[in-house]
Amino acid sequence: MKKYLITGYSGFVSHHFLNYLESLQQPCNILGVDINEAAFDLGSYKYVQGSFKNVNLLNREEVDVLIHDYKPDYILHLASYSSVASSWKNPVTSFVNNTNIFLNLVEQVRLLGLACRILSVGSSEEYGKVDVSTLPLHEELPTNPVSPYAVARVSQEMLSQIYAKSYGLDIVLTRSFNHIGPGQKEMFAISSFAKKMIGIKHSSSGEKTMTVGDIEIVRDFVDVRDVVKAYYLLLQKGEKGEIYNICSGKGITLKEVLQTMKNILQIEVNIQIDKELIRPADNPVIIGSNKKIKDKIGWQPSISLETSLKDLLNYWDNNQ
Amino acid sequence: MKKYLITGYSGFVSHHFLNYLESLQQPCNILGVDINEAAFDLGSYKYVQGSFKNVNLLNREEVDVLIHDYKPDYILHLASYSSVASSWKNPVTSFVNNTNIFLNLVEQVRLLGLACRILSVGSSEEYGKVDVSTLPLHEELPTNPVSPYAVARVSQEMLSQIYAKSYGLDIVLTRSFNHIGPGQKEMFAISSFAKKMIGIKHSSSGEKTMTVGDIEIVRDFVDVRDVVKAYYLLLQKGEKGEIYNICSGKGITLKEVLQTMKNILQIEVNIQIDKELIRPADNPVIIGSNKKIKDKIGWQPSISLETSLKDLLNYWDNNQ
Repeated sequence: MKKYLITGYSGFVSHHFLNYLESLQQPCNILGVDINEAAFDLGSYKYVQGSFKNVNLLNREEVDVLIHDYKPDYILHLASYSSVASSWKNPVTSFVNNTNIFLNLVEQVRLLGLACRILSVGSSEEYGKVDVSTLPLHEELPTNPVSPYAVARVSQEMLSQIYAKSYGLDIVLTRSFNHIGPGQKEMFAISSFAKKMIGIKHSSSGEKTMTVGDIEIVRDFVDVRDVVKAYYLLLQKGEKGEIYNICSGKGITLKEVLQTMKNILQIEVNIQIDKELIRPADNPVIIGSNKKIKDKIGWQPSISLETSLKDLLNYWDNNQ
Repeated sequence: MKKYLITGYSGFVSHHFLNYLESLQQPCNILGVDINEAAFDLGSYKYVQGSFKNVNLLNREEVDVLIHDYKPDYILHLASYSSVASSWKNPVTSFVNNTNIFLNLVEQVRLLGLACRILSVGSSEEYGKVDVSTLPLHEELPTNPVSPYAVARVSQEMLSQIYAKSYGLDIVLTRSFNHIGPGQKEMFAISSFAKKMIGIKHSSSGEKTMTVGDIEIVRDFVDVRDVVKAYYLLLQKGEKGEIYNICSGKGITLKEVLQTMKNILQIEVNIQIDKELIRPADNPVIIGSNKKIKDKIGWQPSISLETSLKDLLNYWDNNQ
């Protein structure tokens, strides 16, 4: 039975990955680790079995014991401080909780000489501020990080390349674009919009105003359920040392996202822009090309933006 | 009186920087910090005054207290694990002792809002494996790090850009090429060659063989006394957020360096190549362009390679 070590177990993506594994109806063993308590248990799964361990990945000794004892076949490294906005407030925390935790993991795999495939999750933020003429963003473009979070991701990517190409570790890399879907924390823009919209829908005071930052920026959104399928396929079929964009290939403004949500809920909303919420050095347009992962791995997104937003709104409706 | 915080105080470059400051005959105050004990004291200086503090820059609290209490006008950040070879053996140590220590310093300067100019020392290794057609290497070329050490340096550089351009810190950046000169530790190739040559010169058994790694690689060597002058000038006149190569502009094989040393010492030496000493993914040719620092800052190297090697050989003759 294949063994998966999943870091960032209590996060949004992990839960969807477990659901995907379960849907395959093949027995597998997982060890979930997180610095927080387990956000869900495995009791409801039939094929996915395993356990949870509370681990601080910044503590190298804890990581050493973890890898040594479990000897995973796969590491799905989801642990991350993945908010760009938070990284501006706490750049050191963002950096060490992305780059250093990754380094601790791969170093122990190297030292033990484990035959273990690792998925190094990167971000579309690595492309940074780009010329519109280079869109859609493809994997050969140079990186140009313009936030502390993006710097951490590029650093992780460079380390991945060294570990894959020079030390021979079996690492496959992604540049994952903005995820959306049920269960996402409200620290991310779209989920925060959805929560606010649901608040307005149920407002007893008739409040119709929501405050947002820059909604003219264009992003490429991909449903988390499509993302985890890509992660699974890359663990099976990805090429060592290669980077794969995971994206829809379509750009949409946050303004259009808000409009779609209003249409779904059939409510009136008064959108107010707060310039204080506009981040320094934000990237105006991010749209990716998913040609490589389509051609080489056979993955493509299957869930429409409207479905993603409906499910996200439903999630907040059920979790107010 | 201007205050300089010098990290990596007990290292090779720091000592030469103090000598340069003294040569200016202007009173200044320095605070030297190092994780090792002070390698030299300030007793022999007339104009340079100050003290030493034993600090672990990986310990953020120690760094916070250090910057808060001293409030430097300049930070010359020399602390580094600067050996590429060591970085292959201990990639985590190399990474954290380059990138994380830098991050701790700049973060505290940011949080205190200090008006402090910082020199972020990078490396020619950041260019990585390059096409010969792109030589000499200039600052606009993309980085392509191929060793753990180089990854750490590129990470530091990206962080410097974020702190300079988005947070507004007054950081000037270098890409410093291979330093040579008296006092360099033997963990670096040229200094190790010099020490071995002096051993052969004085060998009572008539031993004439020295073992080396790949001596066909081409490097751009610059005397440490020229380097520290460049550091001083960049602290005075460098432009915030800009990167400056510090190099001779000339490429030379390690083989030619060995030949020059033999000529200086007028001895016979039998050079043996040990393939075990050849590092993975080494860069065959590194030659830099110093046009930018020449044009913008008025710096250029003044010490010939032969003089550097003579002084380095003399150093080992006096410190066997």
